[in-house]
Amino acid sequence: MAQQHLDPTDPQLGSAGPAPTGDVLAGYLRAQATEFLRALRLHRETGSGANGSEGSAEAARALRRSARRISASLHTFQPLLDTDWCEGMRPELAWVSGTLAMEHAYTARLERLLSALHRLSGSTAFPAQATEAAAGHRAGAPAGQTATQERGNLTVGAAKAGALLDRQLTLARTRAHSTALQALGSSRFHAIADKVAVLASEVPLTATAAAADLRPHARAAEERLRDAVAALPLITAGSPYNAAALVHGLSPDTVPHPQDAPWHQVRLLLRLHRYAREAACGPQGNTVVDLRLLSAGQALNRHRDASEAAAAAAQAARTPRIAPATAYALGVLHADQRHEVEAARFAFQQAWQKEAVSTR
Amino acid sequence: MAQQHLDPTDPQLGSAGPAPTGDVLAGYLRAQATEFLRALRLHRETGSGANGSEGSAEAARALRRSARRISASLHTFQPLLDTDWCEGMRPELAWVSGTLAMEHAYTARLERLLSALHRLSGSTAFPAQATEAAAGHRAGAPAGQTATQERGNLTVGAAKAGALLDRQLTLARTRAHSTALQALGSSRFHAIADKVAVLASEVPLTATAAAADLRPHARAAEERLRDAVAALPLITAGSPYNAAALVHGLSPDTVPHPQDAPWHQVRLLLRLHRYAREAACGPQGNTVVDLRLLSAGQALNRHRDASEAAAAAAQAARTPRIAPATAYALGVLHADQRHEVEAARFAFQQAWQKEAVSTR
Repeated sequence: MAQQHLDPTDPQLGSAGPAPTGDVLAGYLRAQATEFLRALRLHRETGSGANGSEGSAEAARALRRSARRISASLHTFQPLLDTDWCEGMRPELAWVSGTLAMEHAYTARLERLLSALHRLSGSTAFPAQATEAAAGHRAGAPAGQTATQERGNLTVGAAKAGALLDRQLTLARTRAHSTALQALGSSRFHAIADKVAVLASEVPLTATAAAADLRPHARAAEERLRDAVAALPLITAGSPYNAAALVHGLSPDTVPHPQDAPWHQVRLLLRLHRYAREAACGPQGNTVVDLRLLSAGQALNRHRDASEAAAAAAQAARTPRIAPATAYALGVLHADQRHEVEAARFAFQQAWQKEAVSTR
Repeated sequence: MAQQHLDPTDPQLGSAGPAPTGDVLAGYLRAQATEFLRALRLHRETGSGANGSEGSAEAARALRRSARRISASLHTFQPLLDTDWCEGMRPELAWVSGTLAMEHAYTARLERLLSALHRLSGSTAFPAQATEAAAGHRAGAPAGQTATQERGNLTVGAAKAGALLDRQLTLARTRAHSTALQALGSSRFHAIADKVAVLASEVPLTATAAAADLRPHARAAEERLRDAVAALPLITAGSPYNAAALVHGLSPDTVPHPQDAPWHQVRLLLRLHRYAREAACGPQGNTVVDLRLLSAGQALNRHRDASEAAAAAAQAARTPRIAPATAYALGVLHADQRHEVEAARFAFQQAWQKEAVSTR
């Protein structure tokens, strides 16, 4: 079923040209490991203030980026690598990138929700303020103060909802920051960094892997993606205003929303596919087709972000003793973000359709 | 600007074939007046119970339908008719159709909102229940009882929101029913009915109108429509998930929503255009092109209904001392209906575009 979608003339995964081998994979892994170590050094140099500096945030992003790519390669090309080493390494890398991702996720979620509240209030002054406020948070400005400044443009309900979300998500972000700092100072992390340092010079390929073809493994990753996409409700998603994302929006079990799970799964599989292409082709493989994958991936990132923002609004509405006006604003905000979820699915369907046409 | 859209080969308003004259208009007005009197007789025969029977509701719809058509013809073809008579008649017919429309509007609004609450709660059992409940209301069943039955499938917040809306809109509907009954028994209405009885046999055409061409007047109605449509933000509306309808969704002045007004105006102009074609061509003019006008008109009806339902949800959220869970559900419901507004604008844009292509 998925096989028929594969294009033998694909310049990256097709059969034309010399096959990328385990040696290419080893080069890719060494480069990613070197990038991991560079980011780690940068992170230590830029320090780690109360809420993190811009430089350390950038370093953390680079650390996550290389950790994700190493972990993905270990998954896709596992048969070419030492099994015990892979099985020991992957959960550790997932723990690193997952732990480092939380602080950024809470910051982005708060920005998204405050920006939506301002849009819903008809305030046009917000986007710049939101950026300033977020920068202020990063630089350690008191959260209460920025929240008060922002509330100037909002109605009472929206202002109270914004303050509540600001309080809850700033607290979560601060905790995530502490957790990340603790993680980076832990012996568990030092052991991972040591293993990555070894990887930067010595990749544990199996005996026959150096000359083995990478492409069957990369194609298998693509097939897993295509199978998962085929199971998505793409006909519904491609019909605008289908109102599917808000079904169950008032049911008790909305956090997390069960209907979002297959889309989150496709997001992960798309990333694995993209990294597999990268590993098999090197960075020069980022051609037009890759841009399409990127835009499909961006739609799925937006889907994930809106899904989690909607859940945060629903969660905040369960805070005891809030005013009805606050709860009303959070309800509007929740529905708005669920429609963002629906819009992101539509955008993915459009991007994916373009890709299917172009690679056939 | 609008003129270039007009198609001289339009089988109904074009220059081909014999021109429809004031005589045709007189025949149309006589037929509509006869229909008005028939509906009035039917309404008196079917009685007018506490909440109206199915037969009297049907009669009221027929009364409104003919009143709207007579009033529209008086507007579009005023130069062909006695000026004083027109000016005296039009506001009276508008009062009749407006007063008779309210009860049905509240019934439909409650159905729409309860149906949306069930959809948002993920309850699939609702559509049939909603119909039964609405029928129950019409037959005078106690509102509290049906509301309780429906709440079985809802979460607490959605159930309380549904009960609140049921209470408020049932009260409004009952008042509208009494107002309509009073209106139909008033001397003001009897004077209108007498004038319509005269119109059924004797149409006050001006001296030259019997042989005058109806088409320039019908075309002027079409131009007014096209000018108003040209001023709508159709590029935004045609881009799915533009999120425009929910902007200002949390601003204090959302009832009524100012951005909806030009769409409501186009809805009225579209109806005037449709009735002008009807008057100039007779009922056999209802061809394919008319079906397109109908689907554009249906989108604008949906726009109006969703706009008013969203306002009712926002209004209900201002009820003092409601629980936060109720307010949250009403916020979700408000946003859902504002997205229905956006979806209706998209549907109108699609229908209008089809029409523009086909009549050029």
